[in-house]
Amino acid sequence: MPNVEVSGPPLSDEKKREMALEMTECAARGYGLPKQAIVVVITEHPPQNVCVAGRMVCDDRAVLTED
Amino acid sequence: MPNVEVSGPPLSDEKKREMALEMTECAARGYGLPKQAIVVVITEHPPQNVCVAGRMVCDDRAVLTED
Amino acid sequence: MPNVEVSGPPLSDEKKREMALEMTECAARGYGLPKQAIVVVITEHPPQNVCVAGRMVCDDRAVLTED
Amino acid sequence: MPNVEVSGPPLSDEKKREMALEMTECAARGYGLPKQAIVVVITEHPPQNVCVAGRMVCDDRAVLTED
Amino acid sequence: MPNVEVSGPPLSDEKKREMALEMTECAARGYGLPKQAIVVVITEHPPQNVCVAGRMVCDDRAVLTED
Amino acid sequence: MPNVEVSGPPLSDEKKREMALEMTECAARGYGLPKQAIVVVITEHPPQNVCVAGRMVCDDRAVLTED
Repeated sequence: MPNVEVSGPPLSDEKKREMALEMTECAARGYGLPKQAIVVVITEHPPQNVCVAGRMVCDDRAVLTED
Repeated sequence: MPNVEVSGPPLSDEKKREMALEMTECAARGYGLPKQAIVVVITEHPPQNVCVAGRMVCDDRAVLTED
Repeated sequence: MPNVEVSGPPLSDEKKREMALEMTECAARGYGLPKQAIVVVITEHPPQNVCVAGRMVCDDRAVLTED
Repeated sequence: MPNVEVSGPPLSDEKKREMALEMTECAARGYGLPKQAIVVVITEHPPQNVCVAGRMVCDDRAVLTED
Repeated sequence: MPNVEVSGPPLSDEKKREMALEMTECAARGYGLPKQAIVVVITEHPPQNVCVAGRMVCDDRAVLTED
Repeated sequence: MPNVEVSGPPLSDEKKREMALEMTECAARGYGLPKQAIVVVITEHPPQNVCVAGRMVCDDRAVLTED
């Protein structure tokens, strides 16, 4: 605690590691706490479970980059 | 944003699409925002991970319809 | 269970009631369960706690309608 | 409702059942409500999706026991 | 991490303390981890933000005890 | 979408703005998406609602820096 929960499309393990470490440092700076206190959890949602702007990501991945 | 997170048992892709589109319209109406602003995420929980009224859904799916 | 969590800007009690009832019916239809099973929770986030597209909602509420 | 969401590493079905039943009783006591009202959902995160203290759990599971 | 998120109606500070300590022990046992690893967060939702079985808790608190 | 939810103790508006902008850039880089796609929501939990390592943050704020 503090916790950072990131929800998005699937990512490679290497991308998850990089992003989680950056988020840890960002949260530690923001709260003025040592990075030992920070937890980051990444949840990967399949594109058939996410709807942006009334369109399923599985039907039209471009919806993620348009908005 | 606004975001709608729906958590429940697994659903077919067709049911998820229908429900997500309806939830998008419902949220757009509720907030008075265009549906372009709305994100819906559906999370499917396996029945061995959900406990309702002290009974695991994997042991007794009827617990979902009784309460 | 199933649960619907809606996160967005503050709303009037009347708007919350209307939206929650509609979401309940939508989820009951989607899951093929009686509406007795459905829980809807609305969380209202103040505009200084939400950032869309790199802009805080408190600085520029239009960011909600543009994306 | 009330709801208890537990997020952690994967567990056996038997461990999930035991923990969910205990959490149900604990929440029922805490809120002074019958256990019929309580929902517990357990989410299992793979170790390559969780970062504690700036270290991915997949790289060093000991990070869970140290903090 | 692991994390326990409890969502329900408002509680007294004393009830929150008791429940959080019990949940900590329960999660530590369930995961086989020291209680130093466990975080419990309680979120209190006002009754006009929660809808159970198609009824707002602010309109009819009994809906929490019936289901 | 993607979404970043940050949960921690209360922060000043200026700290929230700084952290949200950094998290936005970090998520945009991680997902390879424009920052227009990213939503960050910060939730502030009062210290009497958070329990770390079996101690309430309201009783002993040091528990946040020790773990």
